[in-house]
Amino acid sequence: MGKRKAYQKELEELQTELIGVTRWLRQSGKRVVVILEGRDAAGKGGTIKAMTESLDTRAYRVVALGKPDARETSQWYFQRYVEHLPSAGELVLFDRSWYNRAVVEPAMGFCTNAEYEHFLEVCPSFEKLLADDGIILIKYWLAVDQEQQEERFADRAGDPLKRWKLSPVDIAARQKYTEIGKLRDIMIERTHAAHAPWFVADFNDQKTGRLNLIRHFLEQIPSREFVDTPVKLAKLRGKPQKEHVTDKALTVPRVY
Amino acid sequence: MGKRKAYQKELEELQTELIGVTRWLRQSGKRVVVILEGRDAAGKGGTIKAMTESLDTRAYRVVALGKPDARETSQWYFQRYVEHLPSAGELVLFDRSWYNRAVVEPAMGFCTNAEYEHFLEVCPSFEKLLADDGIILIKYWLAVDQEQQEERFADRAGDPLKRWKLSPVDIAARQKYTEIGKLRDIMIERTHAAHAPWFVADFNDQKTGRLNLIRHFLEQIPSREFVDTPVKLAKLRGKPQKEHVTDKALTVPRVY
Amino acid sequence: MGKRKAYQKELEELQTELIGVTRWLRQSGKRVVVILEGRDAAGKGGTIKAMTESLDTRAYRVVALGKPDARETSQWYFQRYVEHLPSAGELVLFDRSWYNRAVVEPAMGFCTNAEYEHFLEVCPSFEKLLADDGIILIKYWLAVDQEQQEERFADRAGDPLKRWKLSPVDIAARQKYTEIGKLRDIMIERTHAAHAPWFVADFNDQKTGRLNLIRHFLEQIPSREFVDTPVKLAKLRGKPQKEHVTDKALTVPRVY
Amino acid sequence: MGKRKAYQKELEELQTELIGVTRWLRQSGKRVVVILEGRDAAGKGGTIKAMTESLDTRAYRVVALGKPDARETSQWYFQRYVEHLPSAGELVLFDRSWYNRAVVEPAMGFCTNAEYEHFLEVCPSFEKLLADDGIILIKYWLAVDQEQQEERFADRAGDPLKRWKLSPVDIAARQKYTEIGKLRDIMIERTHAAHAPWFVADFNDQKTGRLNLIRHFLEQIPSREFVDTPVKLAKLRGKPQKEHVTDKALTVPRVY
Repeated sequence: MGKRKAYQKELEELQTELIGVTRWLRQSGKRVVVILEGRDAAGKGGTIKAMTESLDTRAYRVVALGKPDARETSQWYFQRYVEHLPSAGELVLFDRSWYNRAVVEPAMGFCTNAEYEHFLEVCPSFEKLLADDGIILIKYWLAVDQEQQEERFADRAGDPLKRWKLSPVDIAARQKYTEIGKLRDIMIERTHAAHAPWFVADFNDQKTGRLNLIRHFLEQIPSREFVDTPVKLAKLRGKPQKEHVTDKALTVPRVY
Repeated sequence: MGKRKAYQKELEELQTELIGVTRWLRQSGKRVVVILEGRDAAGKGGTIKAMTESLDTRAYRVVALGKPDARETSQWYFQRYVEHLPSAGELVLFDRSWYNRAVVEPAMGFCTNAEYEHFLEVCPSFEKLLADDGIILIKYWLAVDQEQQEERFADRAGDPLKRWKLSPVDIAARQKYTEIGKLRDIMIERTHAAHAPWFVADFNDQKTGRLNLIRHFLEQIPSREFVDTPVKLAKLRGKPQKEHVTDKALTVPRVY
Repeated sequence: MGKRKAYQKELEELQTELIGVTRWLRQSGKRVVVILEGRDAAGKGGTIKAMTESLDTRAYRVVALGKPDARETSQWYFQRYVEHLPSAGELVLFDRSWYNRAVVEPAMGFCTNAEYEHFLEVCPSFEKLLADDGIILIKYWLAVDQEQQEERFADRAGDPLKRWKLSPVDIAARQKYTEIGKLRDIMIERTHAAHAPWFVADFNDQKTGRLNLIRHFLEQIPSREFVDTPVKLAKLRGKPQKEHVTDKALTVPRVY
Repeated sequence: MGKRKAYQKELEELQTELIGVTRWLRQSGKRVVVILEGRDAAGKGGTIKAMTESLDTRAYRVVALGKPDARETSQWYFQRYVEHLPSAGELVLFDRSWYNRAVVEPAMGFCTNAEYEHFLEVCPSFEKLLADDGIILIKYWLAVDQEQQEERFADRAGDPLKRWKLSPVDIAARQKYTEIGKLRDIMIERTHAAHAPWFVADFNDQKTGRLNLIRHFLEQIPSREFVDTPVKLAKLRGKPQKEHVTDKALTVPRVY
């Protein structure tokens, strides 16, 4: 079995268990928040895709907020995130999160030092409120060495279909690899807690990284038994029909 | 070049032009609505994925509304769709749409005959208002023969990861292939218009169907020139760093 | 009985019937939209207050939209109004409405002539869709002679508590009394319809205007019988208590 | 000067200062939350009306949330309140608030004892987060003796226009005067804080209560200078016009 196939097989087994997780969530009414943080190109988007592609779209939500507008900027810092927190039975995946203020914003000068310090001070209280309310909160840092990151950037820069993923901020952040690493450590040290733990996953190989992260996530959830309920399709009445569409319809030409 | 690779190559060329479309939309401020309708398993979801996977996530929106709640049911029929119509520069893809009332609802008995008739009567006025406001509105029916559809259902039923896609409504609709075909023809005949045309695409082969549909869509758009703006990555200062995370962090175990 | 008392007595009788209207709406699930238009200071706000002050706050909604933001401006013109249309059993009162584009905007140069013409052309289709969906739509123009209007402006300008009500647009519009009158007539002629009629109410005397308008509105509604359901308060157990608050509480000083 | 006139005069003076407060808010970008709690018929609604009737409608918001729906009930308890917190320059008045869980809900058996205890424990952390973010948070308890409350209930019960204000919950709560008093004291003792203080205002006389509360509120705000900016109305060109409406318009009959 080739490497690609092996990956696919492992992933599908994990995805089966993820379906079990969502079933447990629905039954128990529990709520889960997963936060994915990491440098640009670390693999957050691909991980979310791998985690969700076999899930019923009503069982999870992905939250990837853009830049706050003027109104949002003037509100309580956590306000725009709070509205996306899970209801009973939901899994919410944050592709970046309130931790923007702990790493990207201070690295790029998008917040004042006072705002940064304030965030580190109050963030644990905020997360404690969520945990005390019964929300399961799990935070991942996807780690990638600079050499790997550079390869991925070069790949994006070279592919017309991927260039839009390279924002000016991403490009500027390249030169701040070390600084971002320091901010990451401070963030982890100050906001790690039993009820809102940080886990670091090696994403130098994306596929392995995804498998390890999902495996780890599954183990944080009390129950994930996948109860397979076979679906039976009754025999069709009559013989299969062709889709003959009215002559009045316009047709998409067969070019390919 | 294998069939899979050939498909991928064609698709990427089309995706490049789709990026050109979104660029034109942003520059011109135009708005586009694409409606995808068709039987279950016809290929709507896969088409949307193919159309959007290389687009900047801010350039388009996918709208797939669930069952209306009691409040929505009592409102103007089009109200919950209207709130998702595009702003300047946006491409909005509807994965099923207000046409639920023209096919699925009457076939499954989810609306009264009066509601069905009323929809066919007023839908053209509604769409004319959008078109008159400058919205480009294009509607596709993805055609699939029953034999193909049955194969896809059997595939879903046999795969634990895909079973959730087979809803009870889908299963019940299987036996109504002919009736749905009649409703489809009435819908097309009564709601086709120059400013909101219906196009039928053969989706018995999904990949060919996708390519043909995207090709056709591209040709409806006045401009889709892809202006490639190469991204230059400056040379890194210093040598590449490793991502050494603080010892205080917990680590996701390497299982794979 | 003084004039003020007489007004109050008449108003309360009408308000009782308005409660009957909301009861009928709740029972029948019907939906009503009332649009109030008129020059600045004509009396729209006071009328809405008179109509709603005895209604259960869950039985009606008042919609007074501000200037559209950039995003809204680029959307379908009616989009931001549509989201406020009534659900089953609701009475929605519009304090100005989509008719901004028929009078205020062209008078003040806030829309192009093409936009103005387009509005007059499509507005009837839009309102027909609502009426066909079963929404009862009633439109009032509150008429006030310039002399009266000037008196009210002078009153506002002279009262520090009311000055905020005089916007620069209001002040600029003063000099356009005649032009606004012409736009009003064109609006009425082009958008009056059996299913969305315009009614003109004389508001040179505000109190009389309000009474007449409410009386007229009541007569448009098929049923408004007020069924009084007396509320019985059981005898209290024990003797009345004083509200003794804990000594630890801070107290608002008694200044008055 | 009669009592009514004297009240009106005092109130208008206070309202002038309230306009000054909103001006300061707009200039400073500060945010204020006022919470009004108290027994039924204590006077919360009337106080809010007195505080806001001369304010520019864009300068404040009143938040009076109904019963949470199933989805909201399953979310973080504070989530539905958070979305109404103020943006820069806004004054938000809560007519009842998250403190429902401290008094009404436990008194009426609408929450479990564990939920009640949990609320008292976490509420201070939540409010501290808001205060630390710079939101000015002021909480009032409007005190009313049972005799007064009974009089007001009897008044409502006897007036067909006011009966809708007497909900079954209100009526059931009548018999729990003492218990509610105990819950009030526990609430104040456990959630009073320098950054989120409770103040008790005597509302046995509603008008005096309102004046005292507003006076007190004004004194909590660092600046409330009312800078009067006189509005000058230029002389009209030409002589005043009559509002002659097109003959095609229907007219509201003059009944009164």
